[in-house]
Amino acid sequence: MTTQGAGRPRLTDRKRPGETAREEILDAAAELFTTRGYASTSTRKIADAVGIRQATLYHYFKTKDDILDALLSTTVTPTLEVARRILDSDATPAARLHAVVTFDGVQLWTGRWNIGVLYLLPELRTERFLPFVRARETLRATYRELAAAVLAELAAAGTQHLPDSEEDIPLRLVETLVNLRWDGIGREDEPQRTADAAIRALGWTGDWEAMRSQSSALLAQKE
Amino acid sequence: MTTQGAGRPRLTDRKRPGETAREEILDAAAELFTTRGYASTSTRKIADAVGIRQATLYHYFKTKDDILDALLSTTVTPTLEVARRILDSDATPAARLHAVVTFDGVQLWTGRWNIGVLYLLPELRTERFLPFVRARETLRATYRELAAAVLAELAAAGTQHLPDSEEDIPLRLVETLVNLRWDGIGREDEPQRTADAAIRALGWTGDWEAMRSQSSALLAQKE
Repeated sequence: MTTQGAGRPRLTDRKRPGETAREEILDAAAELFTTRGYASTSTRKIADAVGIRQATLYHYFKTKDDILDALLSTTVTPTLEVARRILDSDATPAARLHAVVTFDGVQLWTGRWNIGVLYLLPELRTERFLPFVRARETLRATYRELAAAVLAELAAAGTQHLPDSEEDIPLRLVETLVNLRWDGIGREDEPQRTADAAIRALGWTGDWEAMRSQSSALLAQKE
Repeated sequence: MTTQGAGRPRLTDRKRPGETAREEILDAAAELFTTRGYASTSTRKIADAVGIRQATLYHYFKTKDDILDALLSTTVTPTLEVARRILDSDATPAARLHAVVTFDGVQLWTGRWNIGVLYLLPELRTERFLPFVRARETLRATYRELAAAVLAELAAAGTQHLPDSEEDIPLRLVETLVNLRWDGIGREDEPQRTADAAIRALGWTGDWEAMRSQSSALLAQKE
């Protein structure tokens, strides 16, 4: 896209963070969808919030649903990529799960807008959002695989742990960061502590400092 | 209210579950709010779904916000009442927390509509919903008190457990039943298993059968 080139002149009246008009549109839409509601936000209002004409907005996104889909993807795609890389590493199961929860949690916790509140919209029930729903299912399956490895290790060591049927607990916990943000509670280190809680909830005990430093090392690695 | 008397004649064309017109309105609104969206649902559509005139609806609820507030209250008030009674009992801390999680979870899991999806609506940010937001804060404080008692017991016994800062984990877990319902996953016994997971996540270990039967006994007691 020509608009993404480094040579694009910066507008002096830029209202929004973002390198490109596309990113500015996403930022404005995220604000309006999460603070005013999806149904109540028109593409006209989004264009106004960016300071562009509606025709310009349609150049980037044909429909409001396309904007929502792009926003939702930003909450799942990066975690899926990181999780795939980490699954291939030779770190311990606990460190791998801890790293993925931390990465996912940081996205949900520090993004400019609390996009996760949009997961429960009735609009996502339509055909249009099947690809996103499928991506979330893939994320869920990845979390289950990571948790199953921790549980298998605990079973092999004879440690008391959660039953296999509870391998959804880590994803369930990380997604509650959305609710904590909505409620305005929680601390800066909430994602890291959620990762600790997820590991501990499965029954893991061991050298916490070693596990956390292995988790940090996994996240510090380049692709 | 005269409409709640046992002598009210049953309509033969009753479309909705509920003893009274008020309950029928709440049921129709819960369906429309959770499946079509709050902003997209007018009081006219709710009246149509019940099969009454809009003027009749206004006899029970002055505004759409009043309907939403009544629905939200049904998800918090009963748990608060049960939790207060259980806090006064002499059951063990683990059984008390387990009983409250189970009760709360059953409400969220088996209600006819998944009303919890409405917790994250931007509309709840307004003054109108402050009483509901306060009630949820009271529920959160009650959960913390129940969890703190479990953690104190574990600390006294020298058992490895979650840090005190994680006493929100049980409420976080029970509220994810809303997400599981939205995703269409989970089993019939999800509330009970969530209660087990909440106790285990804090670090509790012990006689599970004894703890579960004490929890059931607490819930079987009359007020």
